[in-house]
Amino acid sequence: MASKLRIIPIGGLGEVGKNMMALEYGRNILIIDTGLMFPENDMLGIDYIIPDYSFLRDKADLIRGIIVTHGHEDHTGAIKHVIEEFNAPIYATPLTRGLLEVKLREAKLLDKAALNTVQAGDIVEIGPFKVEFYHVCHSIPDGVGLGITTPVGLIVHSGDFKIDHTPVDGWVTDFSKLGEFANRGVLALLSDSTNSTKPGWTPSEAVIDGALDKVLREAPGRVIIATFASLISRIQQVANACVRNGRKMTLVGTSMQENAKMAQKLGYLELPDGLMVSIEQALGMPDKKVVIMTTGSQGEPSSILGRLSLGRNRSFDLKDDDTVVVSSHPIPGNEEMVSRTINRLFQRGARVVYDPILPVHVSGHASAEEQKLLINLVRPKFFVPIHGELRQLHQHAALAREVGLPEENIAIVENGTVIEFTEDSMSISERVPGGYVYVDGTGVGDIGPEVMRERDNLARDGFVVVNLLVNSKTRKLAEKPLILSKGFVFVRDSEELFSAAAKKAEVAAFNANGQGMARAVEEKLSEFFYAETKRRPMVFALVNEV
Amino acid sequence: MASKLRIIPIGGLGEVGKNMMALEYGRNILIIDTGLMFPENDMLGIDYIIPDYSFLRDKADLIRGIIVTHGHEDHTGAIKHVIEEFNAPIYATPLTRGLLEVKLREAKLLDKAALNTVQAGDIVEIGPFKVEFYHVCHSIPDGVGLGITTPVGLIVHSGDFKIDHTPVDGWVTDFSKLGEFANRGVLALLSDSTNSTKPGWTPSEAVIDGALDKVLREAPGRVIIATFASLISRIQQVANACVRNGRKMTLVGTSMQENAKMAQKLGYLELPDGLMVSIEQALGMPDKKVVIMTTGSQGEPSSILGRLSLGRNRSFDLKDDDTVVVSSHPIPGNEEMVSRTINRLFQRGARVVYDPILPVHVSGHASAEEQKLLINLVRPKFFVPIHGELRQLHQHAALAREVGLPEENIAIVENGTVIEFTEDSMSISERVPGGYVYVDGTGVGDIGPEVMRERDNLARDGFVVVNLLVNSKTRKLAEKPLILSKGFVFVRDSEELFSAAAKKAEVAAFNANGQGMARAVEEKLSEFFYAETKRRPMVFALVNEV
Repeated sequence: MASKLRIIPIGGLGEVGKNMMALEYGRNILIIDTGLMFPENDMLGIDYIIPDYSFLRDKADLIRGIIVTHGHEDHTGAIKHVIEEFNAPIYATPLTRGLLEVKLREAKLLDKAALNTVQAGDIVEIGPFKVEFYHVCHSIPDGVGLGITTPVGLIVHSGDFKIDHTPVDGWVTDFSKLGEFANRGVLALLSDSTNSTKPGWTPSEAVIDGALDKVLREAPGRVIIATFASLISRIQQVANACVRNGRKMTLVGTSMQENAKMAQKLGYLELPDGLMVSIEQALGMPDKKVVIMTTGSQGEPSSILGRLSLGRNRSFDLKDDDTVVVSSHPIPGNEEMVSRTINRLFQRGARVVYDPILPVHVSGHASAEEQKLLINLVRPKFFVPIHGELRQLHQHAALAREVGLPEENIAIVENGTVIEFTEDSMSISERVPGGYVYVDGTGVGDIGPEVMRERDNLARDGFVVVNLLVNSKTRKLAEKPLILSKGFVFVRDSEELFSAAAKKAEVAAFNANGQGMARAVEEKLSEFFYAETKRRPMVFALVNEV
Repeated sequence: MASKLRIIPIGGLGEVGKNMMALEYGRNILIIDTGLMFPENDMLGIDYIIPDYSFLRDKADLIRGIIVTHGHEDHTGAIKHVIEEFNAPIYATPLTRGLLEVKLREAKLLDKAALNTVQAGDIVEIGPFKVEFYHVCHSIPDGVGLGITTPVGLIVHSGDFKIDHTPVDGWVTDFSKLGEFANRGVLALLSDSTNSTKPGWTPSEAVIDGALDKVLREAPGRVIIATFASLISRIQQVANACVRNGRKMTLVGTSMQENAKMAQKLGYLELPDGLMVSIEQALGMPDKKVVIMTTGSQGEPSSILGRLSLGRNRSFDLKDDDTVVVSSHPIPGNEEMVSRTINRLFQRGARVVYDPILPVHVSGHASAEEQKLLINLVRPKFFVPIHGELRQLHQHAALAREVGLPEENIAIVENGTVIEFTEDSMSISERVPGGYVYVDGTGVGDIGPEVMRERDNLARDGFVVVNLLVNSKTRKLAEKPLILSKGFVFVRDSEELFSAAAKKAEVAAFNANGQGMARAVEEKLSEFFYAETKRRPMVFALVNEV
């Protein structure tokens, strides 16, 4: 019996994440991307989240290679965790490799990683998979999609893409390769669903040039532009706008400076001689001649823009006539933080420019019409929407039906569900164990639903600890109970509440037999606090025998 | 010296909230709106927020009246708190009054409130203020704007408004009154800034009819439509669509049923005979004949839609071929929760329709072009953008400059800043004390920044309590320290960590002199836990002398 090709998206339910995917054929596994997710608002204290790929541990020796399609965190950020377990060659284009190296060097794992540079257009044989890397436009240069010839047929993986006819680097998505794939016959297309609920076309990055020109021309003083540290093409656009408008430019922030240096060395960023100045030089120049580019476009309080908005930046401060450009969109969940930062910048007297006031940022993902175009270009037999939440996958499937794909040839699955292909069939198979792994501090996976529930409780109503000293002979309290509380009420204003609570605790302890004393006190106090405050703090009684 | 007119927006910094405003002239105060705010994502455990109007307490006897412009929570929700302190007549249109009555009855304060019904078009003299109520379109019927003739001139307050030429109730914004104001000469316009960053025009509610028709016509089974309980016009639109498409309709959820009953009684909702059925009847009918309307469009887990998405609703469950319509937009901060609910509904097999998939909801607020139209209709001398965050106020001011208002005639202030008017001047005056008051359970204002910081700490890293039994003679530990921890690590997997911590605590206690023992242990353990986990739980040592 011929083997089937198995495609396994890895991660938690509710979506097919961008973070990680496996292709399995016989005793061969190819991994695509090793990314992280940012925690949602109610994932308290979590630094980041990685896909749970533990089911691969038994098959570690079958992993033939790891492909990283582009340099964004949600495709690269788990590399250090993956590399620690799986020792397979990594394939990436030069800029993506450069960004991986920065990450691996920081984690002191660069020696351990077998990095291989590929160029868009290259064909690499990885086990039974013949992988053709083709160029795609996205919000970072050097992104690729994949044409993977497998024993059962050709699979096209879109990567993160948009159809930009006028990208910053002039390098458009490789339409002829897509046409070639179509002519060879595509068994299945796996395509980026991020913007499937956005009608129409995503604007070209070129629209940003006009917006930047307007800002740099009209700003009465300095212009401070915040964006992602990895958004190399935006640094290029700002550099070009500075040249056109007679301003000098400085980069502030280590991560942005390092990425820029690396991108410049690799030829992905062209900065004309005499354009760049140090922040110290910039601060000494006439304000109308200066553009300061920095990080913090997500409103992170510890970033430079965040610190500027709070008046806590060290190297320089906001001043009158500064114009701040927020050149990004909020990552879902960050909307409030970004709005708050913008409000604070206004409060400190800056003018602030952001989309939609001016188009100073555009999405890096294809909207509905582009997604339909890709399907029509590739003409796949089967279609699997990837990279998105269920609602985005369903809408992407609706678009595929609109352009004529039969419903039964479209598979909407969630992470962990295996899709099997033969030369002429697609079927949904079993689920592999998985989910997400929370990373908090140095702990990887030690925070589970129980700790998250505790944090949620503590966050809403705080806690109360009652310290009881019990005479071990009489089983009575030796002293008045002592109460400690945080996050529940403002303690200094709540003397009455706590002294009444201490009395309740004393009575409950007195009425309880020694054994169940702690529990009796906890129950009584929980009731009492709810009756008094309609809040439900976590209540603990500590019984000390004397 | 003639008195000045003082306008005082009440609430916290960063915005001019919709919640409450005072007009003061001589020894006369008029309050406009008494609303609440919903907590942001990081306001942990807070139920809702009301403006801090404590500066009015000294002037309680000067308050001549309270006007509520329409029936939404952010304009009505603080009424019970306000009424408990200030005993002034309340003025509202019939539907707004009806919604206030529901609220006051629930709070057992209906007797205390001096409610007066006004109709759009009425003129009421309240102290030295002659108030003309004029109709505006919004996402609730019976909203009004105000023309307030004061001793220094005519002030126009837009209320929450949009320019809808085809509203559900056919009652358009009162353009002729606005023209009349303009002809009389308007000293200042205070106008709703909510959507100032949205270019163009907000679509008419009429576009929803087409979307509902498409859904009701094409749905293979039941249609479940979720919206706000107070969105009377949406209930009307669904009723009309049911009639057009031969479906029966049922309302599920007490708040929606009560609001509908009240609105029907007052003539704001027309439900043809034979249209409405009970949920029991609906469940017994053919699926294609049924529309179930309910609450939960913000994804609240305890709402009916929330429970349906989790498979936990009692009266009925989702089934195959159900279509769910989410007929609202997420309130800022709720985006994640709404997306998650939609994903879960898909997961449970429902089709889900929401904006932008189909225009099943439109905003109730004017976009940029409508805001400019209002300014041009009213032709005020001075302009004060209200109802919005600073970024929205600044953009609204930019629109006002675009239509020709001089920059010096526009005042952007934050809540608490007084604006003073004479017959021909506007100036920014002092700040009154204020801010926001958090309501949590029965506590109003007892949660301040300190408790919020504690909750934030607890939410991120949890806590550890170490219980020490100390021999009062030797000042040494009488027993091994006992450790309690929540929200920090998964305790069952952390035996090693905690037994090492107990040892550290013992050593620290041993090395400390008795007095500083608790503090010494706390410091040592904080260090230890951070070194081991890179987390910073709150650490407390309880010292019990034996």
